[in-house]
Amino acid sequence: MDKNNFSYYIPTKIFFGSGMINKLGEMKLPGEKALIVISSGTSMKKYGYLDKLCKLLEKNSCEYVVYDKIKPNPTYKNVMEGSEIAKKNNCDFVIGLGGGSSIDAAKSIAIMVTNEGDYWDYVHGGTGLGLPLGNKPLEIVAITTTAGTGTEADPWTVITKEDTFEKIGYGNNDTFPSISIVDPDLMMSVPTKLTAYQGFDALFHATEGYLANISNEISDMYALKSIELIGRSLAKAVNDGNDKEARTDMALANTLSGFVESTSSCISEHSLEHALSAYHPQLPHGAGLIMISESYYRFFMDKVPDRFIKMARALGIQNAEEPIDFVNGLLKLQKDCGVDELKLSDYGIQKDNLEMYAKNAMDTMGGLFELDPYKLTLSEATSILEHAYK
Amino acid sequence: MDKNNFSYYIPTKIFFGSGMINKLGEMKLPGEKALIVISSGTSMKKYGYLDKLCKLLEKNSCEYVVYDKIKPNPTYKNVMEGSEIAKKNNCDFVIGLGGGSSIDAAKSIAIMVTNEGDYWDYVHGGTGLGLPLGNKPLEIVAITTTAGTGTEADPWTVITKEDTFEKIGYGNNDTFPSISIVDPDLMMSVPTKLTAYQGFDALFHATEGYLANISNEISDMYALKSIELIGRSLAKAVNDGNDKEARTDMALANTLSGFVESTSSCISEHSLEHALSAYHPQLPHGAGLIMISESYYRFFMDKVPDRFIKMARALGIQNAEEPIDFVNGLLKLQKDCGVDELKLSDYGIQKDNLEMYAKNAMDTMGGLFELDPYKLTLSEATSILEHAYK
Ligand SMILES: [Zn+2]
Ligand SMILES: [Zn+2]
Repeated sequence: MDKNNFSYYIPTKIFFGSGMINKLGEMKLPGEKALIVISSGTSMKKYGYLDKLCKLLEKNSCEYVVYDKIKPNPTYKNVMEGSEIAKKNNCDFVIGLGGGSSIDAAKSIAIMVTNEGDYWDYVHGGTGLGLPLGNKPLEIVAITTTAGTGTEADPWTVITKEDTFEKIGYGNNDTFPSISIVDPDLMMSVPTKLTAYQGFDALFHATEGYLANISNEISDMYALKSIELIGRSLAKAVNDGNDKEARTDMALANTLSGFVESTSSCISEHSLEHALSAYHPQLPHGAGLIMISESYYRFFMDKVPDRFIKMARALGIQNAEEPIDFVNGLLKLQKDCGVDELKLSDYGIQKDNLEMYAKNAMDTMGGLFELDPYKLTLSEATSILEHAYK
Repeated sequence: MDKNNFSYYIPTKIFFGSGMINKLGEMKLPGEKALIVISSGTSMKKYGYLDKLCKLLEKNSCEYVVYDKIKPNPTYKNVMEGSEIAKKNNCDFVIGLGGGSSIDAAKSIAIMVTNEGDYWDYVHGGTGLGLPLGNKPLEIVAITTTAGTGTEADPWTVITKEDTFEKIGYGNNDTFPSISIVDPDLMMSVPTKLTAYQGFDALFHATEGYLANISNEISDMYALKSIELIGRSLAKAVNDGNDKEARTDMALANTLSGFVESTSSCISEHSLEHALSAYHPQLPHGAGLIMISESYYRFFMDKVPDRFIKMARALGIQNAEEPIDFVNGLLKLQKDCGVDELKLSDYGIQKDNLEMYAKNAMDTMGGLFELDPYKLTLSEATSILEHAYK
């Protein structure tokens, strides 16, 4: 692949900034009746975000139905159930309000409202059949209340099939949100730990996209800017949730990391984490990535040393000269964010099963291993998990 | 306007890189019969680009009609005539092949195939009526053979109405190309002077967008990267047209400058130049900008000094400390590109008329003056032209 050849497509209309949610009260919406998809937790109601959204839709003469059953790792069942509710209520577009889980679920529901059969018929990888979509999904509006997955600015949706322990990403040119609202005002209430987990998720979208063998000058630009914003502001946002400037930086970093995922790709770090959280749904995605990361980046640092030095500089280590500087910067940031003591064993992950997770990662999301800057063997992938284990 | 609040929308699918034109032989096209819009010059035929395009369309079972009458400053007449031909031949999409002129004409033709009446009914500014478009334009495919206007990555089209001496930009969310091909192979044959003029046009799209009071973190990122690529490669591309790396850098800089125009805006430098070339259609747009530029940037440098220092650094002057460093870098680049001796008087522009041009700029494209980092009076705008005059 020639680094100078790439395609670029990010058709989402993004409204970024404080108060931008109010645009939903006046803009032309993609339909007349929305399925609003939110998590099964309480925060969207407690903080008044759901009320706010409903009032704006009413002001805009738009009807809606609420589906509030999305789990932290959204499931195949969520997708099938949500799409049934949308069909029964004649919803003609889908709004995902919340973190990545709700927005990803909204994307997958939008697919299943207009396409027959089973969601796993369309998923590529694992037991998915990889059939083409017969119809365009409903249009999607994403309102992100966290700075984590970047899903508001990319076509990807990650769904877990619980019975087969598969957690697989899916997406195509038709699963970009039509409209995304990135309003830092909605992110002020994210608790400390989640702020850290999600911020590191955004960081790894940028770093993986920067290391991917399909990276290009545009994705590199997004990635380095995202890494810079995270280096500057993640610890601040974690340690003072009311720091609006830091929250705004993180919101932008997250959207830029979504751009990275739209123009480059995650690599095997994400496949490995998905395998862990497919078996252990209580493991937050960002926490899983954090626990793998030191071992992962140590393994890759001498494969593409120049890229590591550039990432280290973007992270704020301006005089970085060695690839290890990035790993050290990463560890310092984890310490500054209070997430340096996480242990895989605390989440029920057993040392004896590490090869099985590595194999699951290759079976279900093997495509990302093809994009690594160096092609991992199963035993190398296993050893990355072994070094990460404590 | 809060710098942290912005909207983002660039829905064009871009295929960038050597050989990317071949994608047109295999991709899903937006229609079944294209109006191909090219200039009245000979280069599209001489270099075989038109033949190549026709063969690719035939391979893809797509019919076409060629309209080859576009002038360097495309005219209102081109738009009305081209749209008649498209309608008569039942073309269902429009391909612009060539420089900014042909692509801009294609955009405006696409508007007039689906909308009644007169193109100037829809234009904002000058004698344009500013009516809303009743219908979506036909879809547009842009194939750029120059690195200049960035029109392949923005919604803008600039058309000249000869009888009223108006040269006005127009565009909205529906006038982005659906598909753009940016293939440096098609740019290798651009002559020396045009390479320089167009390269500086791209530079000023970036610098103006960086200075505009609606700039934001994303447009800044595009602008600085574009300035960096131009600082690195424009003189190389001008002095050795076969330097493919330099041509590729310039192609990317140009597309990034289009992104700048999509996320920020040109400012009054462009209004002033449009006034000059509206009266003197033989004046190339880029040459007009070059001749204004020293005086223009000298005027603004102490209004936003920090921005000038950052632009200077992006241009390659790494130890820049003063706003004047940018102006000096600009002059050096003009010298290195052999365009430092251009004179407004050589194009028939008379010193006595400078206030009239400044007034025309404010009357026809006054909106851009609102986006300047400092609000110019008529006498200040005139004095910028006076200082530029030789
Ligand atoms: Zn992730
Ligand atoms: Zn221009």
